[in-house]
Amino acid sequence: MCINYPIAIFLSSENTEILFVIFIIFLAAKLSAELFERLKQPAVVGEILAGVLIGPSVLAIVKQTDLTKVLAEIGVILLLFTVGLEIKPKALFQVGGRALLVAVLGIIVPFFAGWGLLALWGKPTIEAFFLGAAMVATSVGITARVLASLNVLNTQTSQIIMGAAVIDDILGLLILSVVSSMAKGSINYKELALTAFLSIGFTFFMIFLGAKIVNKTRPTVERLKIGDAFFIVGLVICLGLSFLASYVGVAAIIGSFLAGMALSEFSEDTNLHNKSGAVMEFLLPFFLVGIGLQLDLSVFKDTNVIVLTLLATLVAVITKLVGCGLAALSLGRQQALQIGVGMVPRGEVGIIVAQIGLSLGVMSSALYGVVVFMAIATTLIAPPFLVVLFKESKNVLTDETTEVVDSDKKLSVIE
Amino acid sequence: MCINYPIAIFLSSENTEILFVIFIIFLAAKLSAELFERLKQPAVVGEILAGVLIGPSVLAIVKQTDLTKVLAEIGVILLLFTVGLEIKPKALFQVGGRALLVAVLGIIVPFFAGWGLLALWGKPTIEAFFLGAAMVATSVGITARVLASLNVLNTQTSQIIMGAAVIDDILGLLILSVVSSMAKGSINYKELALTAFLSIGFTFFMIFLGAKIVNKTRPTVERLKIGDAFFIVGLVICLGLSFLASYVGVAAIIGSFLAGMALSEFSEDTNLHNKSGAVMEFLLPFFLVGIGLQLDLSVFKDTNVIVLTLLATLVAVITKLVGCGLAALSLGRQQALQIGVGMVPRGEVGIIVAQIGLSLGVMSSALYGVVVFMAIATTLIAPPFLVVLFKESKNVLTDETTEVVDSDKKLSVIE
Repeated sequence: MCINYPIAIFLSSENTEILFVIFIIFLAAKLSAELFERLKQPAVVGEILAGVLIGPSVLAIVKQTDLTKVLAEIGVILLLFTVGLEIKPKALFQVGGRALLVAVLGIIVPFFAGWGLLALWGKPTIEAFFLGAAMVATSVGITARVLASLNVLNTQTSQIIMGAAVIDDILGLLILSVVSSMAKGSINYKELALTAFLSIGFTFFMIFLGAKIVNKTRPTVERLKIGDAFFIVGLVICLGLSFLASYVGVAAIIGSFLAGMALSEFSEDTNLHNKSGAVMEFLLPFFLVGIGLQLDLSVFKDTNVIVLTLLATLVAVITKLVGCGLAALSLGRQQALQIGVGMVPRGEVGIIVAQIGLSLGVMSSALYGVVVFMAIATTLIAPPFLVVLFKESKNVLTDETTEVVDSDKKLSVIE
Repeated sequence: MCINYPIAIFLSSENTEILFVIFIIFLAAKLSAELFERLKQPAVVGEILAGVLIGPSVLAIVKQTDLTKVLAEIGVILLLFTVGLEIKPKALFQVGGRALLVAVLGIIVPFFAGWGLLALWGKPTIEAFFLGAAMVATSVGITARVLASLNVLNTQTSQIIMGAAVIDDILGLLILSVVSSMAKGSINYKELALTAFLSIGFTFFMIFLGAKIVNKTRPTVERLKIGDAFFIVGLVICLGLSFLASYVGVAAIIGSFLAGMALSEFSEDTNLHNKSGAVMEFLLPFFLVGIGLQLDLSVFKDTNVIVLTLLATLVAVITKLVGCGLAALSLGRQQALQIGVGMVPRGEVGIIVAQIGLSLGVMSSALYGVVVFMAIATTLIAPPFLVVLFKESKNVLTDETTEVVDSDKKLSVIE
């Protein structure tokens, strides 16, 4: 990207270029979102494709930088925070057993399928393990965004997906730790046990005690003199727990999601949700466009690589669908499908796994390209199906109820 | 700043550190703001001092980085945008002549005083010119924040201050261009004329036609399918004009301020102001803390430097007070004082001038320290006086009117 700066001495030209990048990412995302809304397609897909369009593969106007990465990170942190605000810990706890089953099957099936695919392809075991690990990681951000835009976050299905995604992230992290350790030569079992303990402990602590502790602070928050105290305190807790989650070794978004849940009672009668949502709306495009920006089509010169990419993508879709769907089958075909599709997007998490593999020198740049394509393709495929599946379950109730009801609640209504 | 990362393999430790910096800046700013509110002092002062406290001079927990600079820049862009939303172009135009006078006298007096001070001190002419240029620059962000928190943006006084600040920025930029050119050896008059033309043209275009053009797009915005269309379109215009302003050579915040004014009619019956305000609340602490982070007390070992610093700060305060106050004296002593004090903060603009002087090699690091101290001190001194001065003019109307009325409107009420 090259701009001719006439003078721009007051603020440096570097600053002007940063402002250009921020403007163009936001504009492209929103134009594309509008187009996709008009085509009755999910806006998230539009925003990711906007990233592909303005990114290195097509127009090459902008590329991913440290700055856009940080804006993306804050954007997805706030997304999971606002999603958490709509989910009560109790609701997540009630679906805990089912979510665990969905997460575990949704990890085992893709991991072995990914490993097996690359083993059959004649690649080294460690590279095959990394593909397996990349296949495991669910990008809950994309699904959460679609569920929120469909206004179905308060359904049992959504809660199972969100719960499974949290567990998936923790287990996926442990798998990645094992695989990375193997790549480095040896597994440090003590370190691994510590990661497991800290991440599981953090999550349990937040789910069981987070909301209780937060609710006790309510009178204090009400006495604060600063304006918008609930919003400010909410942001402090969100940022603090995102840091803490990242520090103990879980993804930052798990921290912000748990923070949101802990604050869910605050969001009922304050403007916390509304204001956090505004910040999220501003920053989320950097996350979505950022995913698209990472697509590099130049690796696909070799038929062999193209075939592997298509196979990997197919395996990635089918294995989550089958693994997670099977785990939820007793809830009915409709709900099992919703959950299966909801867990398909690999998004930024798959890409991060591939980046680690690349940086450890155990993943070839061709396979890196394969994983990035798989991660983005699964992220683009799932949302349209999710929309259709959730609209179907709404249509079962053919009256004018404005509230969205999933197939599960519907049963209780009929009873 | 050093954290021991236990494992943090999933997201890099770099990411964890960034999350820590974001968290700690936000937390420190808001704790300090709360403390200052309780002491009945302006929250902005608290947030800047929080930066001094956690910055290199005291606790050395964080320092200014490229990332915090960008967050600060977006924060102050959004601040000026939300301030602009509360001011109609017509209102600014009505006070245009007065604002021009305030700006011009508020430039001439400090420039020559700053130059004279350093000339008397026996410093080279070019270094003296740079101190003059640094004395010129008003940081409208601080005053705007205080005025907005006092809820007096719709008064004539505030409008004069805002108008004068815009003109001040344009003229200050031209002075900085001249001084920088002199430091480089020769003045490029053609380039200078182009800067002047572009920046004045841009400002006039926005003030006279911006709102008209924006208002014509209203039916289109209403037909958009994306959620929160007014907020999204508002952000696009804000970011686009910030970039454009920076591109033509004015400060980005002038672009966002003019964007806000152009959108002022949109903000009356939409949630544009509310949502933009939420984004601003999240990011502004990075701007305020960022100012404090830049204070480096280590240069003050030499009595000579300390004396010069105190003199420069005194001259900076008095010259704006006298220059701007004189220009507004016919409006009455009270309003003249409000305007004079309102133009005192030099904030980040003074620091930027010093940085340019330093980078051109014509300003010593000692004088750089002097200017930074002066810029921060003026920024800390003005807000408490502003609060008192505006409260006084409110108290003149002793009834229960909840709306804030300045001394000028009060007269028309009495008539």
